Amino acid sequence: MLRIAYLGPEGTFTEAALLQMVTAGLIPGIPDGEAEFTPVLTDTTPGALAAVRNGAADYACVPIENSIEGSVLQTMDSLAAGSPLQIYAEFTLDVAFTIVTRPGHSGPIRTVAAFPVALAQVRRWLAANLPDADVVPTTSNAAAAHDVAEGRVDAGVSTRLAAQRCGLDVLADRVVDEANARTRFVLAGQPGPPPPATGADRTSVVLRLDNVPGALVAAMTELSIRDIDLTRIESRPTRTELGTYMFFLDCVGHIDDDSVAEALKALFRRCADVRYLGSWPTGSAAGALPPQLDEASQWLTRLRGGTA
Amino acid sequence: MLRIAYLGPEGTFTEAALLQMVTAGLIPGIPDGEAEFTPVLTDTTPGALAAVRNGAADYACVPIENSIEGSVLQTMDSLAAGSPLQIYAEFTLDVAFTIVTRPGHSGPIRTVAAFPVALAQVRRWLAANLPDADVVPTTSNAAAAHDVAEGRVDAGVSTRLAAQRCGLDVLADRVVDEANARTRFVLAGQPGPPPPATGADRTSVVLRLDNVPGALVAAMTELSIRDIDLTRIESRPTRTELGTYMFFLDCVGHIDDDSVAEALKALFRRCADVRYLGSWPTGSAAGALPPQLDEASQWLTRLRGGTA
Amino acid sequence: MLRIAYLGPEGTFTEAALLQMVTAGLIPGIPDGEAEFTPVLTDTTPGALAAVRNGAADYACVPIENSIEGSVLQTMDSLAAGSPLQIYAEFTLDVAFTIVTRPGHSGPIRTVAAFPVALAQVRRWLAANLPDADVVPTTSNAAAAHDVAEGRVDAGVSTRLAAQRCGLDVLADRVVDEANARTRFVLAGQPGPPPPATGADRTSVVLRLDNVPGALVAAMTELSIRDIDLTRIESRPTRTELGTYMFFLDCVGHIDDDSVAEALKALFRRCADVRYLGSWPTGSAAGALPPQLDEASQWLTRLRGGTA
Amino acid sequence: MLRIAYLGPEGTFTEAALLQMVTAGLIPGIPDGEAEFTPVLTDTTPGALAAVRNGAADYACVPIENSIEGSVLQTMDSLAAGSPLQIYAEFTLDVAFTIVTRPGHSGPIRTVAAFPVALAQVRRWLAANLPDADVVPTTSNAAAAHDVAEGRVDAGVSTRLAAQRCGLDVLADRVVDEANARTRFVLAGQPGPPPPATGADRTSVVLRLDNVPGALVAAMTELSIRDIDLTRIESRPTRTELGTYMFFLDCVGHIDDDSVAEALKALFRRCADVRYLGSWPTGSAAGALPPQLDEASQWLTRLRGGTA
Repeated sequence: MLRIAYLGPEGTFTEAALLQMVTAGLIPGIPDGEAEFTPVLTDTTPGALAAVRNGAADYACVPIENSIEGSVLQTMDSLAAGSPLQIYAEFTLDVAFTIVTRPGHSGPIRTVAAFPVALAQVRRWLAANLPDADVVPTTSNAAAAHDVAEGRVDAGVSTRLAAQRCGLDVLADRVVDEANARTRFVLAGQPGPPPPATGADRTSVVLRLDNVPGALVAAMTELSIRDIDLTRIESRPTRTELGTYMFFLDCVGHIDDDSVAEALKALFRRCADVRYLGSWPTGSAAGALPPQLDEASQWLTRLRGGTA
Repeated sequence: MLRIAYLGPEGTFTEAALLQMVTAGLIPGIPDGEAEFTPVLTDTTPGALAAVRNGAADYACVPIENSIEGSVLQTMDSLAAGSPLQIYAEFTLDVAFTIVTRPGHSGPIRTVAAFPVALAQVRRWLAANLPDADVVPTTSNAAAAHDVAEGRVDAGVSTRLAAQRCGLDVLADRVVDEANARTRFVLAGQPGPPPPATGADRTSVVLRLDNVPGALVAAMTELSIRDIDLTRIESRPTRTELGTYMFFLDCVGHIDDDSVAEALKALFRRCADVRYLGSWPTGSAAGALPPQLDEASQWLTRLRGGTA
Repeated sequence: MLRIAYLGPEGTFTEAALLQMVTAGLIPGIPDGEAEFTPVLTDTTPGALAAVRNGAADYACVPIENSIEGSVLQTMDSLAAGSPLQIYAEFTLDVAFTIVTRPGHSGPIRTVAAFPVALAQVRRWLAANLPDADVVPTTSNAAAAHDVAEGRVDAGVSTRLAAQRCGLDVLADRVVDEANARTRFVLAGQPGPPPPATGADRTSVVLRLDNVPGALVAAMTELSIRDIDLTRIESRPTRTELGTYMFFLDCVGHIDDDSVAEALKALFRRCADVRYLGSWPTGSAAGALPPQLDEASQWLTRLRGGTA
Repeated sequence: MLRIAYLGPEGTFTEAALLQMVTAGLIPGIPDGEAEFTPVLTDTTPGALAAVRNGAADYACVPIENSIEGSVLQTMDSLAAGSPLQIYAEFTLDVAFTIVTRPGHSGPIRTVAAFPVALAQVRRWLAANLPDADVVPTTSNAAAAHDVAEGRVDAGVSTRLAAQRCGLDVLADRVVDEANARTRFVLAGQPGPPPPATGADRTSVVLRLDNVPGALVAAMTELSIRDIDLTRIESRPTRTELGTYMFFLDCVGHIDDDSVAEALKALFRRCADVRYLGSWPTGSAAGALPPQLDEASQWLTRLRGGTA
């Protein structure tokens, strides 16, 4: 059975996203209609990717981007360094918290467990609803549920999945101060043939550029001149010297699209290094599709054959 | 006396950087040769910027970029939102830690206080030198020294400045696992006339772009076509929807350089919004200077006068 | 009185265009409402420009572009080489021919004088109307009228102006095989202050580029990035070696438009040589006006003053 | 036997260039070592191209560019309009004239026949050597020799080949006022498979662009971004309205070079119309070779197969 690594304990948002990917049939190697896999729980997100690298897992499910916090730097840095990994699927989860208590708890709520990142997103709700409770920091959203289940705190800011797993009561659901909070998760594995193009795909690369003026503009122009829609650009320091960066670029399209293939070749030629992170389905269209070159290719074939 | 806000408690790296700025005469309003200012200590880095915004301080000194961790997101997001602030000076500090103990402490070191970020950078040193000590997390590097001084722990991973302020012994100095760790700090205040151009200056802006393909390439081309050296580009989510970003751009040069001024005007015209973060001296040259347009301007003047 | 050189003899299309410029008040130095100047007739178009260069005339009126034949190469080459000249005005003339005969001529038309260039444009008319006449070549359109007046031929393909000057009868007017034939004429003089911007102006330059790949694209990008509308580009060999060219560029706008001024300075900086041919009114709008930078300039001024 | 059309009469520079092509084995369909073909003499250069179009000839040899005069507009316009033709070979001829007389002519030289274009290039020589001779215009350089042979003039400005053909004496050889005068000739036929790539090839297209700002820059960027060396750009009016142009572009490389093929497809996609004029050997390297994409293509193949 496929082994899939992800941040534990049971009930994390990551696990919730992974289950959605499984249900949607997005995971290569899990037949449609089946949903069985062997979970490999890790302490950290980079740990899940490491499990794939060292052979302890076939895939890792990891968060890569959050609409409020931005990129998940640990994930990006881990994908950019070490042995190559490749992304095969993604799922974007609406982030909203579930406030949990032990079944039958009826007294006042004096303590609330919360992961600090979550805390920042439910502060207004807590001020309005549990103004007198002391906040007890935890190491993850799921851990807050476990803390409640084990009686260390009266309530917890956690996930719906964790509430179910731990058999807790739901005091409030879909709690979040700022609307539109969403996290995108990806499924990474060893490099392999990308999943077939679906017409709604994303391709992602990490570029290292020679330190010459205009190098980044030139690389980006390789996409823009081909009308390839650049949907994301993130810079990250190379960790060697201040002022040197690598660049994460996402675009609409699949490596099997002629124009995307051309652009990848151009980047390969132009950049000090290109790390291909994969082409995979996004489920829904976002951005302009890459132009199809079929007609141009046919014209070229006719020219070469002298039959234009 | 000028009031300058920064992350406390006494002895933080931020304070060390600020003192260097003062000594170097980089702070507008503090006369050369003097070094007096009123410190306004804050709990957080955004809090220091807030102190400027609400009038509690004249300037804030804040970290903006680290060679290992990348941009300090809190600082960037705080500069990009809210009422405008402007940067007037910068200083880059080599980051290395000082391991401190109480004076006269002679017994075994069983506990070491460390800020988690620092811990990640001295792990190898601790494993080699204090393998048996338990690590006690603190809320800042400076706080680790205070914890030592107050007897809560045997040793602390802290700063040289904090060691001095707390009167502690230095067990080891310049401790850091990874060489070249450096943090850049900036001095931000209310908008005002930029400090005069020195020939080694940095100009910084935050761009919000219309969501059209090629908008970022077009904006960056406004710099590259003018041979202005783009030394840094960082994307940050706009916090409204996944996939929308604002961009922090740093370039070599000063708003009083003709070519930089031209580029700023072009960005103003092209972008949905441009927030000018300032032009200030960097102390040393880094990157290619913007081209001087004096000769071209004189030629233009002659053409207009009919005397070319 | 102003001396203006142009291709003779009396009655050329060039003279007709010049008279239109005079009537329209387009000639600097001729007061509105007056129409007096001293004609300086020359044998050739370059000869008219030479008359300005050697002081024999104040201005020269010369054809520069024809909708059928393209650029008038002699004019372009003459403007590009030798001492600088500057263009102050233009007028576009519909080209149509007048078939002339001597007053009272009633017999058959056995011979028709025609300038070879004109012949190519009235061939169908002649085939339909004078199929049996022999064509006698002349050295200009106006000369055909003079040949008729002096009895050397029965009819001539000439201009309406020449018919008037020579007192000839008009057999047919507005004769031309291909519709839309138009010629643009310009008025060139010694370099001087350009006429004031009118809002419908043209600016023209000749570029010599270093022979490096991308030099021309880079130069043109200096216009396109500034949204300056390039209305014409012509390459001409440098006459030194096959494969080296100079480029004539026309754009919409005036040297007093900020964005045009910026672009000129950028070309000056980028190109091996820029020869400014002038900024002058076109009478009617053609192409997109250059963007106004007033708002951007005011923003820049506020930034520099610290009052943005 | 192959029928090849060219400007007559016998002895033109065009014929000389054609013979060089034959000798060099550049003409598809003429086996190496053989030199036989059926000449099809025409009155004009466009007439030679028309002979190919109407089936009267298999190829036409025509001048396309002169280092002094620039492009041969008739050739370019004829290639750009009408049914498509394709170029298969080129040869560049040093242009220098041969002054011929009848064998045995010993009296004074009172008349010299000269084609007007040639006259412009030997004026200084005539002034120095035959100051008293009257110039009699002819319709081609070769015709000047025929005029001499037939006794209509004493001498002629002609070609060495015409001198041989007409059996004339050579009064002076290699006569030309301006050094470096060279004319490039091309061999055009019906569209067919281009000759194989040699490593020193030229590819040529005619572009018609939509009338939008930046269209030409965008088209040229398709070449420059791919590091394809644009060796020639010529604009020609479309002959419909002043200010609308088509563009002739020559680049280094062959349609079988991956990067040239990519650029052609991009132009096809971007331009209102692309007319391919062919890819053919130039004999010697001129300009930078197009980049080879083999390594990039192999990398792409590995990515697609999951074996990178």
